[in-house]
Amino acid sequence: MTSYQQIVLASRPQGVVSVDNFRLESVPVPTLKDGEVLVRNHYLSLDPYMRMRMEDVKSYAAPQALDEVMIGGTAGEVVASKNPKFAVGDKVVGMLGWSEMGVSDGVLLKKVDASVIPLSAYLGAVGMPGMTAWYGLTQIIQPKAGETIAVSAASGAVGTAVGQLAKLRGCRVIGIAGGKEKCDYVVNELGFDACVDYKAGNLRKDLKAAAPEGIDGLFENVGGEVMDAVLARMNPFGRVALCGLISGYDGEPMPIYNTRVMLSMRLTLRGFIVSEHMDLWPQGLGEMGSLVATGKLKYRETVAEGLAAAPQAFLGLLVGKNFGKQLVKLI
Amino acid sequence: MTSYQQIVLASRPQGVVSVDNFRLESVPVPTLKDGEVLVRNHYLSLDPYMRMRMEDVKSYAAPQALDEVMIGGTAGEVVASKNPKFAVGDKVVGMLGWSEMGVSDGVLLKKVDASVIPLSAYLGAVGMPGMTAWYGLTQIIQPKAGETIAVSAASGAVGTAVGQLAKLRGCRVIGIAGGKEKCDYVVNELGFDACVDYKAGNLRKDLKAAAPEGIDGLFENVGGEVMDAVLARMNPFGRVALCGLISGYDGEPMPIYNTRVMLSMRLTLRGFIVSEHMDLWPQGLGEMGSLVATGKLKYRETVAEGLAAAPQAFLGLLVGKNFGKQLVKLI
Repeated sequence: MTSYQQIVLASRPQGVVSVDNFRLESVPVPTLKDGEVLVRNHYLSLDPYMRMRMEDVKSYAAPQALDEVMIGGTAGEVVASKNPKFAVGDKVVGMLGWSEMGVSDGVLLKKVDASVIPLSAYLGAVGMPGMTAWYGLTQIIQPKAGETIAVSAASGAVGTAVGQLAKLRGCRVIGIAGGKEKCDYVVNELGFDACVDYKAGNLRKDLKAAAPEGIDGLFENVGGEVMDAVLARMNPFGRVALCGLISGYDGEPMPIYNTRVMLSMRLTLRGFIVSEHMDLWPQGLGEMGSLVATGKLKYRETVAEGLAAAPQAFLGLLVGKNFGKQLVKLI
Repeated sequence: MTSYQQIVLASRPQGVVSVDNFRLESVPVPTLKDGEVLVRNHYLSLDPYMRMRMEDVKSYAAPQALDEVMIGGTAGEVVASKNPKFAVGDKVVGMLGWSEMGVSDGVLLKKVDASVIPLSAYLGAVGMPGMTAWYGLTQIIQPKAGETIAVSAASGAVGTAVGQLAKLRGCRVIGIAGGKEKCDYVVNELGFDACVDYKAGNLRKDLKAAAPEGIDGLFENVGGEVMDAVLARMNPFGRVALCGLISGYDGEPMPIYNTRVMLSMRLTLRGFIVSEHMDLWPQGLGEMGSLVATGKLKYRETVAEGLAAAPQAFLGLLVGKNFGKQLVKLI
């Protein structure tokens, strides 16, 4: 290979993201400098946070630059190395973006063992999404056995991990997802105690039926009406891990009306970004890796084929078309 | 005295509280049983939380019962005692309600020294409001020197204490209050660095000017538009102590639109009720008492005369007519 393909951000979305916001480019394979590693990406991770990066606004991270490779986690194989820590054939995960190949100085590249845990899982349950679930649940919600934990976007990469981790800790788990198929999956396949289909039109009533004794912990990925409805069911001293607000990533207003509940129920709500807590990743991913390797934690993947399919797959992710972890398979 | 006056809750408010929701009654002075103490109340404390108790809704405390004496903190003097722990003439604070006299079994009655600190201050800066300020600031906001702390209802009993405590900890303090007189007071008399008059019509712009480097901690007493505007100015890892929501106590909607900020700035918001943290009262009131006794912490009182004036004074408190601590002087 003398060239490879990558996808750059061509323009910032005006409201809803369109495939026209992206541009596929062909670039020459670079010559490595000392210390560098050339990686052939096998999988690209698509994640909701990317939507926020596309905006040029004050946020927790710098915006994705225009005409630069879209940010993104990747899993692949070393194909050339001038870095003594990496050998050709090593399986690695990194942040090489929406690209078939990438060059790394090795600092943020991590070797992984793909013999027991499939390579793609290092982008899901044993990667950033799994760590996100672990951090929000164990560090913010801090669930106790017998408590009721709710999680929105329940069938997504993060939500599936949150619910299973909470079940393993002896909690009653209520999923919230869009559609019967997703709800059936988290209940029947993953062992959630109940799931509320927010598209069914009876959000508040169904939540009450699913959590008759109220909700002690909420892992929030969606925001807006769904979050507001769960807040109204929170028990005293409930905790809310605010992980994502995918319902408002296109700029839609998503007011919270149940402000009173935060006071009357003495809730604690905390927003978090998992990449700011790297000190806990070894502990969190250690647990996630063991659970996946021993089959105690299941995950599901939605896989788009080929780099050119990434923009459409990303658009699908933003409206909940994915089921579990959304990946793009590059090789 | 063979009889005394008290005020009971006659009916629950439909929206805005009216004086007709209260009823003044005359009742006979009871004969004490063993262990009981008869107290002549000198001061009655009026506080925003009473508004929430008037509603018959699920909240952190049982609703105020109809036809029963309105709940409330009191400071007074023992006039008869069949309890060996209390002697006639002892100055005491308790929860004897909107009443000229009250009988206590002594359990929640506390002797205080009114020789250095005026008796009324035990209902304000050295009482529940002061403890509320201390708890929210030191336990939730946990301010560091150099940080910017904002407090709404800044000229109230809690707000004045919050701002002064934060100043003593080396913070920049921004008050938010209604009207020039209140703003001038907290800046010129109490040493706040700035104060935004939310009634002046430029809330967002004025907040930006007052806190050009953003806000690290918010002590929230009001809710609604004011809270929303401050949220938009919060810095990364900001903390919000949610103490009161007086703007919505009559049932007005008070949506929060800046939900995104809670995530993008990784805020922590916690609602609290100070009476659930009694273990910290000795520490908190110890500090407040020392500061008041040594003149390092100032307070102001608005005093209504006579029990019959309590309902109107309470209505005034709910719309911010008071300045500092609202009391009713009974004797």
